[in-house]
Amino acid sequence: MEPNTFQLTSIRNLAEKYDYFCLDCDGVIWSGNRIIDQSIDVINWLHSQGKKIYFITNSSGKTREDYRIRIQKMGYSECVEEQIYGSAYTTAKYIKEKYPEITKVRVVGMNSIRKELSAQGIDSEGGEDELTFDNSTGYMSMDDFEKYPLDPAVKAVVVGLDTKYTYAKLSVASLYIQTGGAKFIATNDDAFDVVNGRKMPGAGAMVQSIQFTLDQSGKDRNIYKPEIIGKPNPYVIELIMRDNNITDKTKMIMIGDRPDTDILLGFNAGIDRCLTLTGVVDSLGSIQSWVEKNENFRPIYVVKSFGKLDDSEISQ
Amino acid sequence: MEPNTFQLTSIRNLAEKYDYFCLDCDGVIWSGNRIIDQSIDVINWLHSQGKKIYFITNSSGKTREDYRIRIQKMGYSECVEEQIYGSAYTTAKYIKEKYPEITKVRVVGMNSIRKELSAQGIDSEGGEDELTFDNSTGYMSMDDFEKYPLDPAVKAVVVGLDTKYTYAKLSVASLYIQTGGAKFIATNDDAFDVVNGRKMPGAGAMVQSIQFTLDQSGKDRNIYKPEIIGKPNPYVIELIMRDNNITDKTKMIMIGDRPDTDILLGFNAGIDRCLTLTGVVDSLGSIQSWVEKNENFRPIYVVKSFGKLDDSEISQ
Repeated sequence: MEPNTFQLTSIRNLAEKYDYFCLDCDGVIWSGNRIIDQSIDVINWLHSQGKKIYFITNSSGKTREDYRIRIQKMGYSECVEEQIYGSAYTTAKYIKEKYPEITKVRVVGMNSIRKELSAQGIDSEGGEDELTFDNSTGYMSMDDFEKYPLDPAVKAVVVGLDTKYTYAKLSVASLYIQTGGAKFIATNDDAFDVVNGRKMPGAGAMVQSIQFTLDQSGKDRNIYKPEIIGKPNPYVIELIMRDNNITDKTKMIMIGDRPDTDILLGFNAGIDRCLTLTGVVDSLGSIQSWVEKNENFRPIYVVKSFGKLDDSEISQ
Repeated sequence: MEPNTFQLTSIRNLAEKYDYFCLDCDGVIWSGNRIIDQSIDVINWLHSQGKKIYFITNSSGKTREDYRIRIQKMGYSECVEEQIYGSAYTTAKYIKEKYPEITKVRVVGMNSIRKELSAQGIDSEGGEDELTFDNSTGYMSMDDFEKYPLDPAVKAVVVGLDTKYTYAKLSVASLYIQTGGAKFIATNDDAFDVVNGRKMPGAGAMVQSIQFTLDQSGKDRNIYKPEIIGKPNPYVIELIMRDNNITDKTKMIMIGDRPDTDILLGFNAGIDRCLTLTGVVDSLGSIQSWVEKNENFRPIYVVKSFGKLDDSEISQ
């Protein structure tokens, strides 16, 4: 395979071909609290050209409203909630659409997940601030575990990043799934977020710990698998199309910095995709090693930065 | 393969051939708080016959002393600490022998691990009662994570079951390993303990969650692997031989209820092994399905119960 079988281009060039811009956020628009180049100006320019913009993030820690406020504050003042597809919202929609019979779920994750579920009419328990078994017996004793009163109304466990994760939460989530009734649904399975060079555990760590307790003998890891709703699951693109009456996929493009989530999402959903070099991949050379792992990680376009409208020069 | 290529026998028969009895505990001697059949009488009888008895358990939640007290209370009054090989002790010995340069470790797990490390002269931090970031920002905020002060003296992370596991403990453990210096050592990776029919998460859930955060991209899970010291790692048998000056392996037998830990341990260590039908496997028929997964799960002997000296009748 030749290394450079993708096209070096600019955002301005993409705007000539595409009407619907699906944007990953972290690594494309911002990096932590820093705005990447002129990304907000580029968004405002696309908006002024009549382009439709959708924000797709695997983070489940914020609601659509939280993201709208953040993005407006950054300078895209016309942003509305309907443009935002965080994995908390997307997961709530997925349950509502795919499992309309589920009226209550247990949540491992931040309260944003419970809020988005509630907005879809789905009751929930758990979440970040739930009381744990924080008494003299520890967070959860064998006795606490044995006697834990399961709510028969709970038909699914929804797992996202929970920065207040505890052994008790792990145990109760496992219990709901192992007793047979509850489906196992994850907002995403990202391994980590990079925080100033340190890898901070992501939702995948919670998902893995629960999953491991469900597998018979612990050696055969194929019995229970969660449904993972976030990227690269193409569900979010289908949802954007339905929500916004988009019928022409050839007018959509996915722009992201991660080959294994963003670019693979575009591939899985059957839309075009563009890699930015401002996040996980910082050079053309390193795209190659990703594509060697999985051909579907290959972008169709590469831009140096989404925050540069015209810059198509890329140094290897 | 014929199903019954192992030998049905009795503990009395085994005592004619073997001098060193390595016993799994849960599922062999006791089940939760219940003593299995006359297991303590059998142990006392073996002791009276001059046999040497060693207790091998993957549980890291008790020290040697804790186990001695428990076993004495059950009725084996001559039990001494030197007979007990719990994974907290075994792991401490492993670090002391294999990595004599390591003088301080971070512990995820119960305080028994810290006590056994201390008994081997290894300093530690962490453990079950460590303060978490339990303030208004949650157990561990991004800011807490970014600024967490790593101790350069810590050269390994030791992970066992921690019923007070938190996101902060997960994050700090991951951080010590990902920054390059610290080795990743697990007392065991058991998926769960069965508590009255419910699967209560085991050390493996903690291990998996930490491991997942270390793998580049989260998709390629082969970069960091912990050293797992508990069964079926043959280290414990080698340790028993060294500690007790045992030179003739043909006089040792491993007796346990789990094909994938106890029986495989015997195989890995090159000693004979006997399966009891009082735990994970409850019939001769189901041994077959284990052996189909892995030929090394095959016992050489089967007894209906370790708690029956003479009963060699086994109904299929």
